Amino acid sequence: MKLATVEFNAQRHAAIATDDGGWILTEAADVAELISRPDKIDAALRAGRRVEGLRVLLPLRSPRKIVCCGLNYRDHIAETGRETPEYPTLFAKFSDTLTDPDAKITVENASRVDWEAELGVVVGATVRRADQEAAAKAIFGYTVANDVSMRDWQSRTLQWFQGKAFDATTPLGPVVVTADEFDPAVPHQISTAINDEIVQDSDTSQLLFSSADLVSYVSQFTTLDPGDIILTGTPGGVGLGENPPRFLRDGDIVTVSIEGIGSLRNTFSLPLRRNS
Amino acid sequence: MKLATVEFNAQRHAAIATDDGGWILTEAADVAELISRPDKIDAALRAGRRVEGLRVLLPLRSPRKIVCCGLNYRDHIAETGRETPEYPTLFAKFSDTLTDPDAKITVENASRVDWEAELGVVVGATVRRADQEAAAKAIFGYTVANDVSMRDWQSRTLQWFQGKAFDATTPLGPVVVTADEFDPAVPHQISTAINDEIVQDSDTSQLLFSSADLVSYVSQFTTLDPGDIILTGTPGGVGLGENPPRFLRDGDIVTVSIEGIGSLRNTFSLPLRRNS
Repeated sequence: MKLATVEFNAQRHAAIATDDGGWILTEAADVAELISRPDKIDAALRAGRRVEGLRVLLPLRSPRKIVCCGLNYRDHIAETGRETPEYPTLFAKFSDTLTDPDAKITVENASRVDWEAELGVVVGATVRRADQEAAAKAIFGYTVANDVSMRDWQSRTLQWFQGKAFDATTPLGPVVVTADEFDPAVPHQISTAINDEIVQDSDTSQLLFSSADLVSYVSQFTTLDPGDIILTGTPGGVGLGENPPRFLRDGDIVTVSIEGIGSLRNTFSLPLRRNS
Repeated sequence: MKLATVEFNAQRHAAIATDDGGWILTEAADVAELISRPDKIDAALRAGRRVEGLRVLLPLRSPRKIVCCGLNYRDHIAETGRETPEYPTLFAKFSDTLTDPDAKITVENASRVDWEAELGVVVGATVRRADQEAAAKAIFGYTVANDVSMRDWQSRTLQWFQGKAFDATTPLGPVVVTADEFDPAVPHQISTAINDEIVQDSDTSQLLFSSADLVSYVSQFTTLDPGDIILTGTPGGVGLGENPPRFLRDGDIVTVSIEGIGSLRNTFSLPLRRNS
Protein backbone atom coordinates (compact mmCIF):
# COMPACT_ATOMS: atom_id res chain seq x y z
CA MET A 1 0.00 0.00 0.00
CA LYS A 2 1.17 3.51 -0.82
CA LEU A 3 0.16 6.20 1.65
CA ALA A 4 0.50 9.94 1.29
CA THR A 5 -0.61 13.17 2.88
CA VAL A 6 -2.57 15.17 0.30
CA GLU A 7 -4.25 18.55 0.15
CA PHE A 8 -8.01 18.41 -0.42
CA ASN A 9 -10.26 21.46 -0.04
CA ALA A 10 -7.36 23.30 1.60
CA GLN A 11 -7.03 20.62 4.30
CA ARG A 12 -4.53 17.88 4.92
CA HIS A 13 -5.71 14.29 4.64
CA ALA A 14 -3.85 11.05 4.68
CA ALA A 15 -4.74 9.14 1.52
CA ILE A 16 -4.21 5.74 -0.05
CA ALA A 17 -2.93 5.61 -3.63
CA THR A 18 -5.09 3.69 -6.11
CA ASP A 19 -3.61 1.67 -8.97
CA ASP A 20 -4.89 4.15 -11.55
CA GLY A 21 -3.25 7.25 -10.09
CA GLY A 22 -6.05 8.46 -7.84
CA TRP A 23 -6.39 8.67 -4.08
CA ILE A 24 -8.78 7.33 -1.47
CA LEU A 25 -9.09 9.91 1.28
CA THR A 26 -8.94 8.89 4.91
CA GLU A 27 -10.13 10.70 8.03
CA ALA A 28 -6.55 10.96 9.31
CA ALA A 29 -4.67 14.26 9.05
CA ASP A 30 -1.41 12.73 7.90
CA VAL A 31 0.38 9.42 7.40
CA ALA A 32 1.80 9.54 10.94
CA GLU A 33 -1.75 9.24 12.29
CA LEU A 34 -2.45 6.18 10.13
CA ILE A 35 0.46 4.32 11.76
CA SER A 36 -1.32 4.31 15.10
CA ARG A 37 -4.83 4.21 13.61
CA PRO A 38 -4.85 1.48 10.93
CA ASP A 39 -8.62 1.29 11.47
CA LYS A 40 -8.81 4.58 9.54
CA ILE A 41 -7.24 2.81 6.55
CA ASP A 42 -9.88 0.07 6.72
CA ALA A 43 -12.67 2.62 7.08
CA ALA A 44 -11.40 4.62 4.09
CA LEU A 45 -11.18 1.51 1.91
CA ARG A 46 -14.77 0.63 2.84
CA ALA A 47 -16.02 4.17 2.14
CA GLY A 48 -13.97 4.36 -1.09
CA ARG A 49 -14.04 8.15 -1.43
CA ARG A 50 -11.88 8.42 -4.56
CA VAL A 51 -10.40 11.71 -5.72
CA GLU A 52 -7.83 12.76 -8.32
CA GLY A 53 -5.28 15.42 -9.12
CA LEU A 54 -4.44 16.41 -5.57
CA ARG A 55 -1.24 18.04 -4.40
CA VAL A 56 0.93 15.60 -2.44
CA LEU A 57 2.48 17.02 0.74
CA LEU A 58 5.12 15.96 3.24
CA PRO A 59 3.75 12.61 4.51
CA LEU A 60 4.89 13.02 8.14
CA ARG A 61 5.07 16.58 9.34
CA SER A 62 6.55 16.36 12.82
CA PRO A 63 8.54 13.22 13.54
CA ARG A 64 10.06 13.58 17.01
CA LYS A 65 13.29 11.98 15.85
CA ILE A 66 15.00 11.98 12.49
CA VAL A 67 18.28 10.08 12.59
CA CYS A 68 20.47 10.17 9.51
CA CYS A 69 23.21 7.80 8.48
CA GLY A 70 26.18 8.93 6.45
CA LEU A 71 28.61 6.77 4.49
CA ASN A 72 26.28 3.83 3.93
CA TYR A 73 26.46 3.03 0.21
CA ARG A 74 29.47 1.03 -0.86
CA ASP A 75 29.92 3.22 -3.97
CA HIS A 76 29.65 6.50 -1.95
CA ILE A 77 32.18 5.24 0.60
CA ALA A 78 34.55 4.54 -2.28
CA GLU A 79 33.89 8.05 -3.65
CA THR A 80 34.85 9.72 -0.37
CA GLY A 81 38.02 7.62 -0.17
CA ARG A 82 37.16 6.28 3.30
CA GLU A 83 37.42 2.74 4.61
CA THR A 84 34.35 0.57 5.08
CA PRO A 85 32.97 1.61 8.46
CA GLU A 86 32.42 -0.79 11.31
CA TYR A 87 29.62 1.34 12.81
CA PRO A 88 27.02 3.59 11.21
CA THR A 89 27.91 7.30 11.18
CA LEU A 90 24.86 9.08 12.59
CA PHE A 91 23.62 12.60 12.97
CA ALA A 92 20.25 14.15 13.79
CA LYS A 93 17.81 16.47 12.06
CA PHE A 94 14.89 18.42 13.50
CA SER A 95 11.49 18.07 11.86
CA ASP A 96 11.54 21.69 10.64
CA THR A 97 14.20 20.56 8.16
CA LEU A 98 11.64 18.53 6.23
CA THR A 99 9.58 19.93 3.39
CA ASP A 100 7.05 18.88 0.75
CA PRO A 101 8.02 16.57 -2.14
CA ASP A 102 7.39 19.36 -4.67
CA ALA A 103 8.56 22.30 -2.53
CA LYS A 104 10.53 25.16 -3.95
CA ILE A 105 13.70 25.12 -1.85
CA THR A 106 15.23 28.50 -1.06
CA VAL A 107 18.65 28.80 0.53
CA GLU A 108 19.70 32.41 0.75
CA ASN A 109 22.90 32.10 2.76
CA ALA A 110 24.79 29.09 1.41
CA SER A 111 26.74 28.79 -1.83
CA ARG A 112 27.70 25.09 -1.95
CA VAL A 113 24.33 23.33 -2.02
CA ASP A 114 24.54 19.62 -2.81
CA TRP A 115 22.10 16.74 -3.34
CA GLU A 116 21.84 13.39 -1.53
CA ALA A 117 19.23 10.85 -2.66
CA GLU A 118 18.23 8.69 0.30
CA LEU A 119 15.92 5.87 1.24
CA GLY A 120 13.89 6.87 4.31
CA VAL A 121 12.68 4.33 6.85
CA VAL A 122 9.46 5.11 8.71
CA VAL A 123 9.27 3.51 12.15
CA GLY A 124 5.96 1.84 12.98
CA ALA A 125 6.30 0.73 16.59
CA THR A 126 8.05 1.72 19.79
CA VAL A 127 11.48 0.09 19.79
CA ARG A 128 14.07 0.04 22.53
CA ARG A 129 17.14 -2.21 22.42
CA ALA A 130 15.66 -4.12 19.50
CA ASP A 131 17.48 -7.06 17.97
CA GLN A 132 17.58 -7.44 14.20
CA GLU A 133 14.30 -9.34 14.03
CA ALA A 134 12.36 -6.97 16.28
CA ALA A 135 13.82 -4.01 14.38
CA ALA A 136 12.70 -5.44 11.04
CA LYS A 137 9.20 -5.95 12.40
CA ALA A 138 9.09 -2.36 13.65
CA ILE A 139 9.53 -0.88 10.16
CA PHE A 140 6.25 0.58 8.93
CA GLY A 141 7.42 1.55 5.47
CA TYR A 142 9.80 3.36 3.16
CA THR A 143 9.94 6.75 1.53
CA VAL A 144 12.31 8.98 -0.47
CA ALA A 145 14.35 11.92 0.84
CA ASN A 146 16.80 14.40 -0.59
CA ASP A 147 19.20 15.20 2.25
CA VAL A 148 20.14 18.54 0.71
CA SER A 149 23.48 19.56 2.21
CA MET A 150 24.98 23.02 2.51
CA ARG A 151 28.61 21.92 2.09
CA ASP A 152 30.05 25.34 2.93
CA TRP A 153 28.35 25.18 6.36
CA GLN A 154 28.90 21.44 6.75
CA SER A 155 32.65 21.77 6.33
CA ARG A 156 33.08 24.71 8.71
CA THR A 157 33.59 22.34 11.64
CA LEU A 158 34.02 18.63 12.33
CA GLN A 159 30.31 18.12 12.89
CA TRP A 160 28.02 17.95 9.85
CA PHE A 161 24.82 19.06 11.61
CA GLN A 162 24.79 22.75 10.66
CA GLY A 163 25.07 21.95 6.95
CA LYS A 164 22.18 19.51 7.18
CA ALA A 165 19.77 21.47 9.38
CA PHE A 166 18.54 24.38 7.28
CA ASP A 167 14.79 24.77 7.69
CA ALA A 168 12.64 23.35 4.87
CA THR A 169 15.48 21.93 2.81
CA THR A 170 14.95 18.14 3.06
CA PRO A 171 12.06 17.13 0.79
CA LEU A 172 10.48 13.82 1.79
CA GLY A 173 7.82 11.64 0.16
CA PRO A 174 5.87 11.54 -2.06
CA VAL A 175 4.47 8.36 -0.51
CA VAL A 176 5.27 5.89 2.22
CA VAL A 177 5.23 2.36 0.80
CA THR A 178 4.36 -0.15 3.50
CA ALA A 179 7.07 -2.66 4.35
CA ASP A 180 5.08 -5.63 3.00
CA GLU A 181 5.44 -4.15 -0.50
CA PHE A 182 9.06 -2.96 -0.52
CA ASP A 183 12.27 -4.77 0.36
CA PRO A 184 15.45 -2.67 0.06
CA ALA A 185 17.58 -5.85 -0.04
CA VAL A 186 16.09 -6.44 -3.49
CA PRO A 187 17.82 -3.92 -5.79
CA HIS A 188 15.66 -0.85 -6.40
CA GLN A 189 17.18 1.94 -8.45
CA ILE A 190 17.94 5.12 -6.49
CA SER A 191 18.82 8.13 -8.60
CA THR A 192 19.18 11.90 -8.78
CA ALA A 193 18.78 14.05 -11.86
CA ILE A 194 19.73 17.72 -12.08
CA ASN A 195 17.48 19.13 -14.75
CA ASP A 196 17.80 16.26 -17.27
CA GLU A 197 21.22 14.94 -16.29
CA ILE A 198 21.49 11.83 -14.12
CA VAL A 199 24.12 12.41 -11.41
CA GLN A 200 23.39 9.62 -8.91
CA ASP A 201 22.42 6.16 -10.10
CA SER A 202 22.72 3.22 -7.73
CA ASP A 203 20.44 0.69 -6.12
CA THR A 204 19.32 -0.10 -2.59
CA SER A 205 21.25 -3.39 -2.48
CA GLN A 206 24.43 -1.25 -2.21
CA LEU A 207 23.44 -0.32 1.36
CA LEU A 208 26.06 -1.43 3.88
CA PHE A 209 23.88 -1.17 7.01
CA SER A 210 20.35 -2.38 6.26
CA SER A 211 17.23 -0.61 7.46
CA ALA A 212 16.80 -3.20 10.23
CA ASP A 213 20.49 -2.80 11.17
CA LEU A 214 19.97 0.94 11.60
CA VAL A 215 16.72 0.68 13.56
CA SER A 216 18.34 -1.88 15.83
CA TYR A 217 21.54 0.14 16.28
CA VAL A 218 19.80 3.46 17.03
CA SER A 219 17.43 1.73 19.44
CA GLN A 220 20.41 0.67 21.57
CA PHE A 221 20.72 4.25 22.82
CA THR A 222 17.40 5.98 22.13
CA THR A 223 13.82 4.77 21.96
CA LEU A 224 12.24 5.05 18.53
CA ASP A 225 8.52 5.71 18.26
CA PRO A 226 5.93 5.39 15.51
CA GLY A 227 6.49 8.09 12.89
CA ASP A 228 10.18 8.53 13.63
CA ILE A 229 12.37 8.49 10.55
CA ILE A 230 15.77 7.10 9.70
CA LEU A 231 17.49 8.35 6.57
CA THR A 232 19.80 5.63 5.38
CA GLY A 233 22.52 7.54 3.54
CA THR A 234 23.26 8.44 -0.06
CA PRO A 235 24.95 6.58 -2.92
CA GLY A 236 27.85 7.86 -5.00
CA GLY A 237 27.47 10.82 -7.31
CA VAL A 238 27.10 13.79 -4.97
CA GLY A 239 28.47 17.12 -6.17
CA LEU A 240 31.16 17.24 -3.51
CA GLY A 241 32.58 14.00 -4.95
CA GLU A 242 33.05 15.43 -8.45
CA ASN A 243 36.41 16.77 -9.54
CA PRO A 244 36.20 19.71 -9.35
CA PRO A 245 33.25 19.76 -6.91
CA ARG A 246 29.98 20.89 -8.42
CA PHE A 247 27.03 22.48 -6.66
CA LEU A 248 23.45 23.44 -7.47
CA ARG A 249 22.71 26.69 -9.29
CA ASP A 250 19.77 29.00 -8.96
CA GLY A 251 16.82 27.56 -10.90
CA ASP A 252 18.07 23.96 -11.01
CA ILE A 253 15.37 21.32 -10.82
CA VAL A 254 16.44 18.25 -8.86
CA THR A 255 14.57 14.96 -9.15
CA VAL A 256 15.30 12.19 -6.66
CA SER A 257 13.68 8.84 -7.37
CA ILE A 258 13.54 5.39 -5.86
CA GLU A 259 12.07 2.64 -7.99
CA GLY A 260 8.88 1.31 -6.40
CA ILE A 261 8.31 4.40 -4.25
CA GLY A 262 8.31 7.56 -6.37
CA SER A 263 10.03 10.86 -7.03
CA LEU A 264 10.73 14.18 -5.36
CA ARG A 265 11.01 17.13 -7.72
CA ASN A 266 12.27 20.41 -6.33
CA THR A 267 13.24 23.71 -7.88
CA PHE A 268 16.06 25.51 -6.09
CA SER A 269 16.15 29.22 -5.43
CA LEU A 270 19.77 30.07 -4.65
CA PRO A 271 20.40 33.82 -4.75
CA LEU A 272 24.13 33.33 -4.15
CA ARG A 273 24.36 31.04 -7.21
CA ARG A 274 22.70 33.20 -9.87
CA ASN A 275 24.12 33.20 -13.41
CA SER A 276 24.65 36.92 -13.78
CA MET B 1 13.94 35.26 39.20
CA LYS B 2 14.67 31.55 39.52
CA LEU B 3 12.08 29.24 37.99
CA ALA B 4 11.81 25.49 38.34
CA THR B 5 9.48 22.62 37.66
CA VAL B 6 8.67 20.91 40.95
CA GLU B 7 6.66 17.91 42.07
CA PHE B 8 3.76 18.75 44.40
CA ASN B 9 1.08 16.23 45.31
CA ALA B 10 2.39 13.92 42.57
CA GLN B 11 1.87 16.62 39.93
CA ARG B 12 4.24 18.86 38.01
CA HIS B 13 4.05 22.58 38.63
CA ALA B 14 6.25 25.42 37.55
CA ALA B 15 7.39 27.30 40.63
CA ILE B 16 9.25 30.45 41.58
CA ALA B 17 12.12 30.14 44.08
CA THR B 18 11.86 32.31 47.19
CA ASP B 19 14.90 33.87 48.85
CA ASP B 20 14.59 31.55 51.85
CA GLY B 21 14.68 28.25 49.95
CA GLY B 22 10.96 27.73 49.40
CA TRP B 23 8.79 27.79 46.31
CA ILE B 24 5.75 29.71 45.13
CA LEU B 25 3.66 27.38 43.02
CA THR B 26 2.23 28.53 39.70
CA GLU B 27 -0.65 27.15 37.65
CA ALA B 28 1.73 26.26 34.81
CA ALA B 29 2.81 22.65 34.29
CA ASP B 30 6.45 23.47 33.64
CA VAL B 31 8.86 26.33 33.04
CA ALA B 32 8.32 26.11 29.28
CA GLU B 33 4.72 27.16 29.78
CA LEU B 34 5.76 30.19 31.86
CA ILE B 35 7.79 31.53 28.94
CA SER B 36 4.67 32.04 26.89
CA ARG B 37 2.42 32.77 29.87
CA PRO B 38 4.24 35.30 32.09
CA ASP B 39 0.78 36.26 33.45
CA LYS B 40 0.94 32.97 35.38
CA ILE B 41 4.06 34.25 37.14
CA ASP B 42 2.26 37.44 38.13
CA ALA B 43 -0.78 35.52 39.32
CA ALA B 44 1.36 33.16 41.40
CA LEU B 45 3.21 36.03 43.04
CA ARG B 46 -0.13 37.65 43.93
CA ALA B 47 -1.54 34.39 45.31
CA GLY B 48 1.74 33.63 47.15
CA ARG B 49 1.12 29.91 47.64
CA ARG B 50 4.41 29.08 49.38
CA VAL B 51 5.61 25.50 49.83
CA GLU B 52 8.84 23.84 50.91
CA GLY B 53 10.90 20.71 50.52
CA LEU B 54 9.70 19.76 47.05
CA ARG B 55 11.56 17.60 44.56
CA VAL B 56 12.90 19.67 41.67
CA LEU B 57 12.41 18.15 38.22
CA LEU B 58 13.65 18.79 34.69
CA PRO B 59 12.52 22.41 34.08
CA LEU B 60 11.66 21.97 30.38
CA ARG B 61 10.53 18.51 29.42
CA SER B 62 10.15 18.61 25.66
CA PRO B 63 12.10 21.32 23.91
CA ARG B 64 11.65 20.86 20.16
CA LYS B 65 15.26 21.74 19.52
CA ILE B 66 18.37 21.25 21.62
CA VAL B 67 21.47 22.48 19.84
CA CYS B 68 24.82 21.81 21.49
CA CYS B 69 28.11 23.56 20.92
CA GLY B 70 31.41 21.77 21.31
CA LEU B 71 34.84 23.32 21.73
CA ASN B 72 33.70 26.62 23.19
CA TYR B 73 35.83 27.21 26.32
CA ARG B 74 39.29 28.52 25.70
CA ASP B 75 40.75 26.12 28.29
CA HIS B 76 38.92 23.07 26.82
CA ILE B 77 40.07 23.94 23.29
CA ALA B 78 43.64 24.01 24.61
CA GLU B 79 43.07 20.65 26.33
CA THR B 80 41.95 18.98 23.07
CA GLY B 81 44.98 20.41 21.24
CA ARG B 82 42.82 22.07 18.57
CA GLU B 83 43.09 25.57 17.13
CA THR B 84 40.66 28.32 18.12
CA PRO B 85 37.65 27.72 15.87
CA GLU B 86 36.24 30.33 13.53
CA TYR B 87 32.72 28.87 13.70
CA PRO B 88 30.84 27.07 16.48
CA THR B 89 30.91 23.28 16.26
CA LEU B 90 27.27 22.21 16.59
CA PHE B 91 25.35 18.99 17.04
CA ALA B 92 21.79 18.16 18.05
CA LYS B 93 20.10 16.29 20.86
CA PHE B 94 16.53 15.01 21.12
CA SER B 95 14.50 15.94 24.20
CA ASP B 96 14.44 12.31 25.40
CA THR B 97 18.11 12.78 26.22
CA LEU B 98 17.25 15.16 29.04
CA THR B 99 16.62 14.04 32.60
CA ASP B 100 15.94 15.44 36.07
CA PRO B 101 18.61 17.37 38.01
CA ASP B 102 18.76 14.62 40.66
CA ALA B 103 18.15 11.64 38.38
CA LYS B 104 19.98 8.37 38.81
CA ILE B 105 21.66 7.90 35.43
CA THR B 106 21.94 4.35 34.18
CA VAL B 107 24.03 3.47 31.14
CA GLU B 108 24.12 -0.27 30.60
CA ASN B 109 25.92 -0.46 27.30
CA ALA B 110 28.76 2.04 27.40
CA SER B 111 32.06 1.81 29.26
CA ARG B 112 33.66 5.22 28.73
CA VAL B 113 31.16 7.60 30.33
CA ASP B 114 32.43 11.16 30.74
CA TRP B 115 31.17 14.43 32.24
CA GLU B 116 30.72 17.85 30.62
CA ALA B 117 29.53 20.78 32.75
CA GLU B 118 27.67 23.25 30.54
CA LEU B 119 25.79 26.49 30.70
CA GLY B 120 22.36 26.06 29.06
CA VAL B 121 20.59 28.92 27.29
CA VAL B 122 16.79 28.87 27.27
CA VAL B 123 15.29 30.65 24.28
CA GLY B 124 12.38 32.96 25.08
CA ALA B 125 11.13 34.16 21.70
CA THR B 126 10.88 33.01 18.11
CA VAL B 127 14.12 33.94 16.36
CA ARG B 128 15.02 33.66 12.70
CA ARG B 129 18.12 35.24 11.21
CA ALA B 130 18.64 37.24 14.37
CA ASP B 131 21.49 39.70 14.67
CA GLN B 132 23.49 39.86 17.91
CA GLU B 133 21.14 42.36 19.53
CA ALA B 134 17.93 40.53 18.64
CA ALA B 135 19.53 37.25 19.74
CA ALA B 136 20.47 38.69 23.13
CA LYS B 137 16.92 39.96 23.62
CA ALA B 138 15.53 36.51 22.77
CA ILE B 139 17.32 34.79 25.67
CA PHE B 140 14.83 33.94 28.41
CA GLY B 141 17.32 32.59 30.91
CA TYR B 142 20.12 30.25 31.85
CA THR B 143 20.38 26.79 33.38
CA VAL B 144 22.94 24.06 34.10
CA ALA B 145 23.47 20.86 32.11
CA ASN B 146 25.77 17.88 32.29
CA ASP B 147 26.27 16.77 28.69
CA VAL B 148 27.19 13.23 29.75
CA SER B 149 29.10 11.66 26.86
CA MET B 150 29.58 8.01 26.05
CA ARG B 151 33.09 8.36 24.60
CA ASP B 152 33.24 4.78 23.33
CA TRP B 153 30.17 5.42 21.16
CA GLN B 154 31.16 9.01 20.37
CA SER B 155 34.50 7.94 18.92
CA ARG B 156 33.15 5.09 16.78
CA THR B 157 32.62 7.46 13.86
CA LEU B 158 33.37 11.05 12.86
CA GLN B 159 30.02 12.29 14.15
CA TRP B 160 29.59 12.75 17.90
CA PHE B 161 25.79 12.39 17.98
CA GLN B 162 25.52 8.72 19.01
CA GLY B 163 27.71 9.26 22.07
CA LYS B 164 25.60 12.22 23.14
CA ALA B 165 22.11 10.87 22.51
CA PHE B 166 21.51 8.15 25.09
CA ASP B 167 18.03 8.52 26.57
CA ALA B 168 17.84 10.18 30.00
CA THR B 169 21.54 10.92 30.34
CA THR B 170 21.71 14.75 30.20
CA PRO B 171 20.54 16.18 33.52
CA LEU B 172 19.34 19.78 33.25
CA GLY B 173 18.28 22.33 35.85
CA PRO B 174 17.71 22.70 38.72
CA VAL B 175 16.38 26.18 37.91
CA VAL B 176 16.22 28.58 35.01
CA VAL B 177 17.55 31.97 36.09
CA THR B 178 15.99 34.73 34.03
CA ALA B 179 18.37 36.72 31.84
CA ASP B 180 17.91 39.94 33.83
CA GLU B 181 19.62 38.25 36.78
CA PHE B 182 22.49 36.38 35.11
CA ASP B 183 25.15 37.58 32.69
CA PRO B 184 27.60 34.89 31.51
CA ALA B 185 30.07 37.58 30.41
CA VAL B 186 30.62 38.29 34.11
CA PRO B 187 32.71 35.36 35.41
CA HIS B 188 30.56 32.75 37.14
CA GLN B 189 32.30 29.61 38.34
CA ILE B 190 31.39 26.45 36.42
CA SER B 191 32.59 23.22 38.00
CA THR B 192 32.26 19.47 38.16
CA ALA B 193 32.99 17.26 41.15
CA ILE B 194 33.21 13.48 41.05
CA ASN B 195 32.31 12.38 44.54
CA ASP B 196 34.36 15.01 46.46
CA GLU B 197 37.05 15.68 43.86
CA ILE B 198 36.84 18.80 41.69
CA VAL B 199 37.65 17.87 38.07
CA GLN B 200 36.34 20.86 36.11
CA ASP B 201 36.76 24.39 37.46
CA SER B 202 36.45 27.32 35.09
CA ASP B 203 34.21 30.32 34.65
CA THR B 204 31.70 31.49 32.09
CA SER B 205 33.93 34.33 30.88
CA GLN B 206 36.10 31.65 29.21
CA LEU B 207 33.34 31.11 26.63
CA LEU B 208 34.57 31.82 23.10
CA PHE B 209 31.13 32.14 21.44
CA SER B 210 28.73 33.97 23.74
CA SER B 211 25.14 32.91 24.30
CA ALA B 212 23.93 35.65 21.96
CA ASP B 213 26.54 34.61 19.37
CA LEU B 214 25.17 31.07 19.44
CA VAL B 215 21.49 32.05 19.30
CA SER B 216 22.27 34.36 16.37
CA TYR B 217 24.39 31.77 14.55
CA VAL B 218 21.90 28.90 14.90
CA SER B 219 19.04 31.17 13.86
CA GLN B 220 20.75 31.75 10.50
CA PHE B 221 19.70 28.25 9.44
CA THR B 222 16.88 27.15 11.73
CA THR B 223 14.16 29.01 13.57
CA LEU B 224 14.42 28.88 17.35
CA ASP B 225 11.24 28.93 19.41
CA PRO B 226 10.43 29.61 23.07
CA GLY B 227 11.65 26.73 25.20
CA ASP B 228 14.37 25.62 22.79
CA ILE B 229 17.74 25.08 24.42
CA ILE B 230 21.31 25.76 23.44
CA LEU B 231 24.05 24.03 25.40
CA THR B 232 27.13 26.21 25.17
CA GLY B 233 29.97 23.70 25.56
CA THR B 234 32.17 22.50 28.38
CA PRO B 235 35.35 23.85 29.97
CA GLY B 236 38.61 21.92 30.44
CA GLY B 237 38.80 18.98 32.79
CA VAL B 238 36.78 16.26 31.07
CA GLY B 239 37.89 12.67 31.63
CA LEU B 240 38.88 12.18 28.00
CA GLY B 241 41.42 14.99 28.39
CA GLU B 242 43.24 13.34 31.30
CA ASN B 243 46.38 11.32 30.70
CA PRO B 244 45.53 8.48 30.76
CA PRO B 245 41.82 9.14 30.08
CA ARG B 246 39.55 8.58 33.03
CA PHE B 247 35.87 7.67 33.02
CA LEU B 248 33.03 7.38 35.52
CA ARG B 249 32.67 4.25 37.64
CA ASP B 250 29.54 2.57 38.89
CA GLY B 251 28.25 4.45 41.91
CA ASP B 252 30.06 7.74 41.24
CA ILE B 253 28.17 10.85 42.26
CA VAL B 254 28.72 13.75 39.87
CA THR B 255 27.91 17.32 40.87
CA VAL B 256 27.87 20.02 38.21
CA SER B 257 27.47 23.58 39.44
CA ILE B 258 27.29 27.07 38.03
CA GLU B 259 27.60 29.94 40.47
CA GLY B 260 24.37 31.94 40.54
CA ILE B 261 22.23 29.13 39.11
CA GLY B 262 22.65 25.92 41.11
CA SER B 263 23.81 22.32 41.02
CA LEU B 264 22.95 19.02 39.38
CA ARG B 265 23.76 15.96 41.46
CA ASN B 266 23.53 12.58 39.82
CA THR B 267 24.47 9.07 40.85
CA PHE B 268 25.65 6.85 38.01
CA SER B 269 24.71 3.23 37.57
CA LEU B 270 27.26 1.73 35.18
CA PRO B 271 27.11 -2.06 35.13
CA LEU B 272 30.10 -2.26 32.77
CA ARG B 273 32.20 -0.23 35.23
CA ARG B 274 31.68 -2.14 38.45
CA ASN B 275 34.59 -2.60 40.85
CA SER B 276 34.54 -6.37 41.04
